[in-house]
Amino acid sequence: MKHEIDLSLYSIRTDLVIDTITQEQASLVTEKKTAYDAISVSEVNIDSKNSALLGKKEGKYITIKFEDVTDHVNRANLIEVVTQELRELLDYLHIAPSDKCFVVGLGNRNSTPDALGPKTLDQCFITKYLFDMEGAEVEPGIRNVSGFVPGVMGSTGIESSDVILGIVEKTRPDFILAIDALASSSMERLSKTIQMTDTGIHPGSGVGNSRKEISQATIGIPVIAIGIPMVVDLATIVSDTIHYFLRQMSYNKENYSKGSHKLTPVTARNYLKHQEHLSKEEKEKLLGMVGTLSEEAIKSLMFEVLTPIGFNMMVTPKEVDFVVDYLSEVLGKSINQSLHTKSLSN
Amino acid sequence: MKHEIDLSLYSIRTDLVIDTITQEQASLVTEKKTAYDAISVSEVNIDSKNSALLGKKEGKYITIKFEDVTDHVNRANLIEVVTQELRELLDYLHIAPSDKCFVVGLGNRNSTPDALGPKTLDQCFITKYLFDMEGAEVEPGIRNVSGFVPGVMGSTGIESSDVILGIVEKTRPDFILAIDALASSSMERLSKTIQMTDTGIHPGSGVGNSRKEISQATIGIPVIAIGIPMVVDLATIVSDTIHYFLRQMSYNKENYSKGSHKLTPVTARNYLKHQEHLSKEEKEKLLGMVGTLSEEAIKSLMFEVLTPIGFNMMVTPKEVDFVVDYLSEVLGKSINQSLHTKSLSN
Amino acid sequence: MKHEIDLSLYSIRTDLVIDTITQEQASLVTEKKTAYDAISVSEVNIDSKNSALLGKKEGKYITIKFEDVTDHVNRANLIEVVTQELRELLDYLHIAPSDKCFVVGLGNRNSTPDALGPKTLDQCFITKYLFDMEGAEVEPGIRNVSGFVPGVMGSTGIESSDVILGIVEKTRPDFILAIDALASSSMERLSKTIQMTDTGIHPGSGVGNSRKEISQATIGIPVIAIGIPMVVDLATIVSDTIHYFLRQMSYNKENYSKGSHKLTPVTARNYLKHQEHLSKEEKEKLLGMVGTLSEEAIKSLMFEVLTPIGFNMMVTPKEVDFVVDYLSEVLGKSINQSLHTKSLSN
Amino acid sequence: MKHEIDLSLYSIRTDLVIDTITQEQASLVTEKKTAYDAISVSEVNIDSKNSALLGKKEGKYITIKFEDVTDHVNRANLIEVVTQELRELLDYLHIAPSDKCFVVGLGNRNSTPDALGPKTLDQCFITKYLFDMEGAEVEPGIRNVSGFVPGVMGSTGIESSDVILGIVEKTRPDFILAIDALASSSMERLSKTIQMTDTGIHPGSGVGNSRKEISQATIGIPVIAIGIPMVVDLATIVSDTIHYFLRQMSYNKENYSKGSHKLTPVTARNYLKHQEHLSKEEKEKLLGMVGTLSEEAIKSLMFEVLTPIGFNMMVTPKEVDFVVDYLSEVLGKSINQSLHTKSLSN
Repeated sequence: MKHEIDLSLYSIRTDLVIDTITQEQASLVTEKKTAYDAISVSEVNIDSKNSALLGKKEGKYITIKFEDVTDHVNRANLIEVVTQELRELLDYLHIAPSDKCFVVGLGNRNSTPDALGPKTLDQCFITKYLFDMEGAEVEPGIRNVSGFVPGVMGSTGIESSDVILGIVEKTRPDFILAIDALASSSMERLSKTIQMTDTGIHPGSGVGNSRKEISQATIGIPVIAIGIPMVVDLATIVSDTIHYFLRQMSYNKENYSKGSHKLTPVTARNYLKHQEHLSKEEKEKLLGMVGTLSEEAIKSLMFEVLTPIGFNMMVTPKEVDFVVDYLSEVLGKSINQSLHTKSLSN
Repeated sequence: MKHEIDLSLYSIRTDLVIDTITQEQASLVTEKKTAYDAISVSEVNIDSKNSALLGKKEGKYITIKFEDVTDHVNRANLIEVVTQELRELLDYLHIAPSDKCFVVGLGNRNSTPDALGPKTLDQCFITKYLFDMEGAEVEPGIRNVSGFVPGVMGSTGIESSDVILGIVEKTRPDFILAIDALASSSMERLSKTIQMTDTGIHPGSGVGNSRKEISQATIGIPVIAIGIPMVVDLATIVSDTIHYFLRQMSYNKENYSKGSHKLTPVTARNYLKHQEHLSKEEKEKLLGMVGTLSEEAIKSLMFEVLTPIGFNMMVTPKEVDFVVDYLSEVLGKSINQSLHTKSLSN
Repeated sequence: MKHEIDLSLYSIRTDLVIDTITQEQASLVTEKKTAYDAISVSEVNIDSKNSALLGKKEGKYITIKFEDVTDHVNRANLIEVVTQELRELLDYLHIAPSDKCFVVGLGNRNSTPDALGPKTLDQCFITKYLFDMEGAEVEPGIRNVSGFVPGVMGSTGIESSDVILGIVEKTRPDFILAIDALASSSMERLSKTIQMTDTGIHPGSGVGNSRKEISQATIGIPVIAIGIPMVVDLATIVSDTIHYFLRQMSYNKENYSKGSHKLTPVTARNYLKHQEHLSKEEKEKLLGMVGTLSEEAIKSLMFEVLTPIGFNMMVTPKEVDFVVDYLSEVLGKSINQSLHTKSLSN
Repeated sequence: MKHEIDLSLYSIRTDLVIDTITQEQASLVTEKKTAYDAISVSEVNIDSKNSALLGKKEGKYITIKFEDVTDHVNRANLIEVVTQELRELLDYLHIAPSDKCFVVGLGNRNSTPDALGPKTLDQCFITKYLFDMEGAEVEPGIRNVSGFVPGVMGSTGIESSDVILGIVEKTRPDFILAIDALASSSMERLSKTIQMTDTGIHPGSGVGNSRKEISQATIGIPVIAIGIPMVVDLATIVSDTIHYFLRQMSYNKENYSKGSHKLTPVTARNYLKHQEHLSKEEKEKLLGMVGTLSEEAIKSLMFEVLTPIGFNMMVTPKEVDFVVDYLSEVLGKSINQSLHTKSLSN
């Protein structure tokens, strides 16, 4: 009975800002330097003007892209970068070392792709009770940190925002760090991007009408959201693939000169970074009417094909259990190293 | 790091009232009839006078004793009795079918003997979000039920009482049902007794000084606590065993006439119900100075022997995983059948 | 370290026979009647001639298709049908009620989409040790059943076939029932099809060269494999969607007469069952060169687009945790009711 | 149904040799030096003569005693000592670096105190499949290691020994390392002692008559058993406590001179190491007839008191979940460092 309920209430909460930025808006994005080739960091600052344009809340968005985290060297590098970015964000928000942090693990522990928040919280070093003990003195370098998993409506019947606000009122933290699994609007970023923002959260958004924003605007303390896309819908997969097909054809044409439209398999991996420049006619030849559509129109079309027959489902990589474990380790360790200056042995 | 913290904060929250009642106070206890030989129910009503005397809060205490729940027939019988008792308690507290219930699963999901509350909540039929949906109409016979696991200080840093109060203020239930694992003050009742009471809870009692009672007196709505003893300390085990030894000797003497003090093994199982009536001299002969002590004094003595060397630990039966699963099934099904009048298929 | 290994060894073991049958071979398929509209059963018998043609082993293949199993009525109906089919298959293989069954739960308990086998085994009623007890007499209607999870190479280092053969040699069962998660070669069947066959298993196929078949031919006892597709690759998703697009266009054209190629959203759900009959020219107009390709060629093309950039991943629905729980319940209960004639209370 | 079966089959497999050695036999025990005060190592070599006397199999028994492993420094020290002892045992048994190891995790993953073996195996670095890959070359310093959890009769219906022997015959390892949870015959050693021996294992001993020894004698390769006592029975707890009581009285008498038999609480922790030297009369005065009995006789008496009433249960500390996690980490890391000379990053 539980499960049937959970299924119907399972909802995806937000998308990556970086996916909503078009080529015309590229000037909004600042690329930052990192010490590692395989890790890139970009920053987007959305002001009130752009907010309406992009349909995204005002604030700072940090996007960290990375490759395979099943390799432990890659993981160590990523933890270093995420720690650095999170520290800078805390500074930017004028959060002092003595400010009390409340870490919120959003999502559903019992649904693997949605367990990122709860599993990250499991890795966090919780200290609030030490500060609350009478007469106890906590070592310098240790911040006052509490944490909570508000759960999902199907299990609790209660909106996450009510749980969070209720606890915030009782415990009065100075800022909130909320971890969540996101939906990806591109195949490429699935489980390979971390987004950090100071724009707050809307837990349970999508369920009914009762959106309750938790942000500096509504509760008066900074609310940092950290998310990783763990699921993607099929319309996105199909339209992305069509786009890759066109890029591959464009790459082939350029690299194999007279190879024209023969469907030669590409051995080079790097066509992924190739900028497609087929003419309208070439695209129509390859893909007919579909080839004349914009990327966005193709996605809408696929959405219209799949939705009426119930097939525009959200999917997750089959290795999701291991991926979630690795990513929650990355986030947990980065959060610990950012929040506490004293080095902690796990 | 988590674990080290958990260990130090692990605390046991309360004891069974029935264990604190002496033979002189037996008149406080009313035995109730049940349909099953293996299940007994007794009721204790503590008024302001007895409250001070027994060191127990004023209110009604229902104690349900049962045998092995690994047998599915026994379980079904027990569910029937617990459902009946819980329904009567709801009536006694004037709780209407339309009153909204908030089920709290106290304890630590990651510590098997302390996972009774969270695991019971997993079995509960949660409906609040159905009532909250705009335009939705919920079938008659279904009560508005929400539920929550407040977690333990070692994982959250936050006192359970703050979590509960915070959520209660946001969601305004009409009564609370709190499930918890208890400590047993007798070997016999370990995982074989359910206590229900209307006296409220003190989550996190024992941790620091900050006891925060959650009861009708403090928050204005009925707070029913349902507990099962899942652990017992070694001083109790030893003093109980000494008492059993004396009972066995008394039983032997009576049944084997002139068998005097020979240490004959007893084959009869039923000496457990035998009322010991050895003389002071007989006891001293068997157990020396220890034999002259009252039951309570023997327990204190053993406490003094075991505590300084760190051995007065709390223990749990080695089958605890299966026992907790069965008992949370019993409580969950009984709660569902008491709260909702419509029969629910799981 | 464990995880890195697991990822590299994760492999998908087999495909549904029904997906490999083309329209020309439709005569091989016999549709069977079921009591429920939402559940269909078909049977394919592959003889030595067809075996080479289809690249599938000789034997009987039962395919049960069904809809949503999150609904408990649907589940109960499905259990009824699967039980019936499994009983018939046991009869067909001349398996007697006294024949000893060895249930093998293939797959990886720690990877949700691959946990179907282990989780199904958890639901099976195991009895062998009762038969092995000296002097014990087992109730009539209870079959001698043992069961095992051989695990995955990444965790054990050992091939599943070695584990199974080693145990079979020591315990001498009369037949084997092996449960496994499969890869789907169509979106439609993902987690909505059960395949039962008497052709045996190839555990660990795909890993290295050491395919070790376990079948009646190799070990002399019947080996029934029961599988459910739990993952699908992206090339399949894309080519299926392109096919749905064409079907939708064909349906639109027929139903909205002069609607020609306008991209009207379809509101009717039932275009899924529509037989596409666009002309070559119409397809080329819609999809260019891609529209002129056969279904199989489109799939190959998408495979070639996605594979070099590492994106032809296997995915699973985001609700996979709940789906696996429901499906293992369905298989477990069906297996119990087929193997034992005495009705068992769980 | 599963659980009811598990409960009845749950069995404890063996006891610590060190607990069966009396003061008269103390010469059999060699104390070894360790770098840490809190960790002691002793070695017992049982020859054919002592074997009969002690009821223990011929062979070498290493006993490592330690204190609290919730502290991470203690854990690191213990891992160092266990690694050293295991390496010496491998040398003593002439096991070469190229010899293939098969690690067996005995016990029941679903029963926390019995999950030590399976959980230790989870920590072991498994490599066999790397050696089996065609053309692959494994780094020097990495041993060929496979591993398996044979499970329990209640879940599989199959005797562990059949599973182990079946796999051994198929995979031909050069030696076996078997990890198991033991029963303690003293309170003090509960979860604070590791025993390593070369005498083999009797998985499933206690179940029926079919003891099947797996040892060098029966299968021709060395079989090292590593065990930690995780449970203790109540008769042991009671008789140990009576013994502590006498020691405390003896200690009090000596330290507080004329303190006679007053029941003064002891504040000094160190009476645990005090050698009791009360006279027979003093003991009788304190404990009557019971005081005149030998330690062993007291234990038998308590066994006779508790068994007929079903109370001589096995118990485990209530923190068992955390304790098992820590101890399996200790064993897993020690095994990895002993088996492989190349240092491995987890």
